Amino acid sequence: MASAAADKQRTKFTLDERDIPAKWYNIQADFKTPAPPVLHPGTGQPIGPADLAPLFPMELIKQEVGTDRWVEIPDAVRDVYRLWRPSPLFRARRLEKTIGTPARIYYKYEGVSPAGSHKPNTAVAQAYYNKKEGVTRLSTETGAGQWGSALAFASQLFGLQCKVYMVKVSYQQKPYRRIMMETWGAQVVASPSTDTQAGKKVLDQDVNSPGSLGIAISEAVEDAATRDDTKYSLGSVLNHVLMHQTIIGLETKKQLEKADDEADIVIACAGGGSNFAGLSFPFAADKLTGKKKKLRLIAVEPSACPSLTKGTYTYDFGDTVGMTPLVKMHTLGHGFIPAPLHAGGLRYHGMAPLVCKLYDEGVIEAVAVPQIATFQAAMQFARSEGVIPAPEAAHAIRVVIDEAERCKKEGKRKTIVFNLSGHGHFDLGAYEQFLAGKLQDYEYPAEKIAEALRGVPQVKV
Amino acid sequence: MASAAADKQRTKFTLDERDIPAKWYNIQADFKTPAPPVLHPGTGQPIGPADLAPLFPMELIKQEVGTDRWVEIPDAVRDVYRLWRPSPLFRARRLEKTIGTPARIYYKYEGVSPAGSHKPNTAVAQAYYNKKEGVTRLSTETGAGQWGSALAFASQLFGLQCKVYMVKVSYQQKPYRRIMMETWGAQVVASPSTDTQAGKKVLDQDVNSPGSLGIAISEAVEDAATRDDTKYSLGSVLNHVLMHQTIIGLETKKQLEKADDEADIVIACAGGGSNFAGLSFPFAADKLTGKKKKLRLIAVEPSACPSLTKGTYTYDFGDTVGMTPLVKMHTLGHGFIPAPLHAGGLRYHGMAPLVCKLYDEGVIEAVAVPQIATFQAAMQFARSEGVIPAPEAAHAIRVVIDEAERCKKEGKRKTIVFNLSGHGHFDLGAYEQFLAGKLQDYEYPAEKIAEALRGVPQVKV
Repeated sequence: MASAAADKQRTKFTLDERDIPAKWYNIQADFKTPAPPVLHPGTGQPIGPADLAPLFPMELIKQEVGTDRWVEIPDAVRDVYRLWRPSPLFRARRLEKTIGTPARIYYKYEGVSPAGSHKPNTAVAQAYYNKKEGVTRLSTETGAGQWGSALAFASQLFGLQCKVYMVKVSYQQKPYRRIMMETWGAQVVASPSTDTQAGKKVLDQDVNSPGSLGIAISEAVEDAATRDDTKYSLGSVLNHVLMHQTIIGLETKKQLEKADDEADIVIACAGGGSNFAGLSFPFAADKLTGKKKKLRLIAVEPSACPSLTKGTYTYDFGDTVGMTPLVKMHTLGHGFIPAPLHAGGLRYHGMAPLVCKLYDEGVIEAVAVPQIATFQAAMQFARSEGVIPAPEAAHAIRVVIDEAERCKKEGKRKTIVFNLSGHGHFDLGAYEQFLAGKLQDYEYPAEKIAEALRGVPQVKV
Repeated sequence: MASAAADKQRTKFTLDERDIPAKWYNIQADFKTPAPPVLHPGTGQPIGPADLAPLFPMELIKQEVGTDRWVEIPDAVRDVYRLWRPSPLFRARRLEKTIGTPARIYYKYEGVSPAGSHKPNTAVAQAYYNKKEGVTRLSTETGAGQWGSALAFASQLFGLQCKVYMVKVSYQQKPYRRIMMETWGAQVVASPSTDTQAGKKVLDQDVNSPGSLGIAISEAVEDAATRDDTKYSLGSVLNHVLMHQTIIGLETKKQLEKADDEADIVIACAGGGSNFAGLSFPFAADKLTGKKKKLRLIAVEPSACPSLTKGTYTYDFGDTVGMTPLVKMHTLGHGFIPAPLHAGGLRYHGMAPLVCKLYDEGVIEAVAVPQIATFQAAMQFARSEGVIPAPEAAHAIRVVIDEAERCKKEGKRKTIVFNLSGHGHFDLGAYEQFLAGKLQDYEYPAEKIAEALRGVPQVKV
């Protein structure tokens, strides 16, 4: 048994598998005004379930528009969650010490999942509902590979086939992510591919096209729309995806209780929004319901892709090509092509509508941070806490350290909680560049953002 | 709260950080006859602490020869262990189902450590004792990089400098492992290097030498022996290293109690022996003391490097070059160069003396398995349980599945426990070869082993 002295150093707050939350939290239940509707790009009218049915199973469509506060997590989904959930919450005592801050810093570590990030939380749920409704095959796109890995893993466990359209430049540069998906039985092709009309069209124009997430989405959607056995699966942005991720924040709240502590500041990175929503929405609930008015919730984005901090809150396409329904969100314009950041998961022109609504209403804050400062924070974390973070998660760490420094200056004992959403085992090339002093910052001048914004469709609601 | 039905599916057995064992188990306390002494290569006489003092701190030398059953784990070491320990024990329900076996299969997952394997269990302890005795710098060698990563991580946490001599062919082919070590602040050089006399000598003969573990050991030992501020650190084989790893088995026993189960068969892979010893020694204690006579303990080695199953139990050098003291072990001859297996951690000509003594006395069994069958088992595991195993750990999985199949045939409900000692995130190149049908088996004909054995020194004790 441990000594009493050692107990004062409590570092790791685990939960038993019986403590895996039984329900997801739906933040729409606590909105004072409903979320803006999704519009049909042709008619400008709100779309209905029938419009989405070719792409998604009915249960997910229901979740997308549902307003019940709690949605039961099926036993079969919880059974798969047991393979890594509940994920641990750590008190970052060594990081606190290197900063010399009076703040208490906690991190929720989602890198313990087989795919190495938070993405399987929704991939498993989506695979389950598809399987239940008789779907036998899923299609999706992936950039750097985090989402594709998660869906390949989930598909394998539910006996579904899985086809992943992987952006060609990543397919070539990140073979390990591709092999991971193939190990879990997925079929992975470089996008643009000759397997779809969309892909062929791009290749006709440029046989050497490096691909883009926009093209890969078009291919995956076409695949699902043209095959009866196949549905499409998306790893962020949508309401149901964000809801599945709330299991992160729900567990974290239980773990903070075990630590006899309460969050003052909650921080996560934001690309499409599911990472941030997953940790913060259960905390946002306390703010929306007036229980914790002073709680700060901070979304961190790259300064090279600053959709919340520099985008416009308006209707825009979800994809780059302009094929999806129109959603109201903070956007840099669907034609905005972000710089080749190492945090591939944060290279998205828009942001989840639910996150945007909270930002628009002042419930959450947003900060944009540059790439080099982000890797400096990642190094400080790796050298104090051990875990080498994914570049996406390192964005949150940058702001955590900044806030902890501020606590030091102001002599305040705040409790800071952040989402360490994934490990960086497949991103060490970026660390090498940083160590060699070869990493660069990208800033977007206002006129370039203004130009991209001119491409946003004019919609009157 | 979970439903009662879900509880029947218990899968993950966690322990609180307060349950991290307070003591390591020293199996030498339960030996009926003492372990054979280590001999000076020049005199053939047993070596004493003074002979080892240039290389190791005194506390580790004491642990090497000590016979106390329990050795207290310092609080500072336990505090670092909290970053990932206690590691989880999983019931592999999905694997059981794919096999259709009545056996219950459990795996202890050591891949949750920051370095991704069980190696930090001893690296942290070694860094601590060195720091305590005023050492400021450690030197070591690494092949594929598992051990070097672990020591880089541990050195960083205790503020020690760390120099890693990495076998040149790995240095070139596995840049991610090198970058990982550098991220934790270690200095990594390709071996043979011009930093040591030993390295220079090899380069003089062959400037393009791809290096070997033997050469890298020589460089790291020379580095430590010629610098007052530096000691040498070894990741397996030695008694104290094996003892530090017993924390794996000690936790596992507690977790099996929580699962209300008892092990019938304990399985782990064996290269230098620390992986196998870590899980199995606390179980072997019950066998040595007569409490559990029927318990089976199985060490699994590659058929391309079968030191236990085909080697001779005799005195031999620990390294390839022939510079170390002589230890009594099952050896293929120190000149034996194993084939380029993907399980780099199992490419060792000898085996830990403590493991060998147990094998010689019939306390443990050993099995050798070929590479392709090993990867078939790895795939079956990855597709049922999610985790992609390191090739080393996959050797254990091969025999787990074989034993579970036997249980199926014989209708027996045995409880099988194995050490999933690391993840395969840095070994996906091997998986790619397997998926492409390009992996090969290596078998060593008896005459080749006989030839290597002729190089074993003739020692009379």
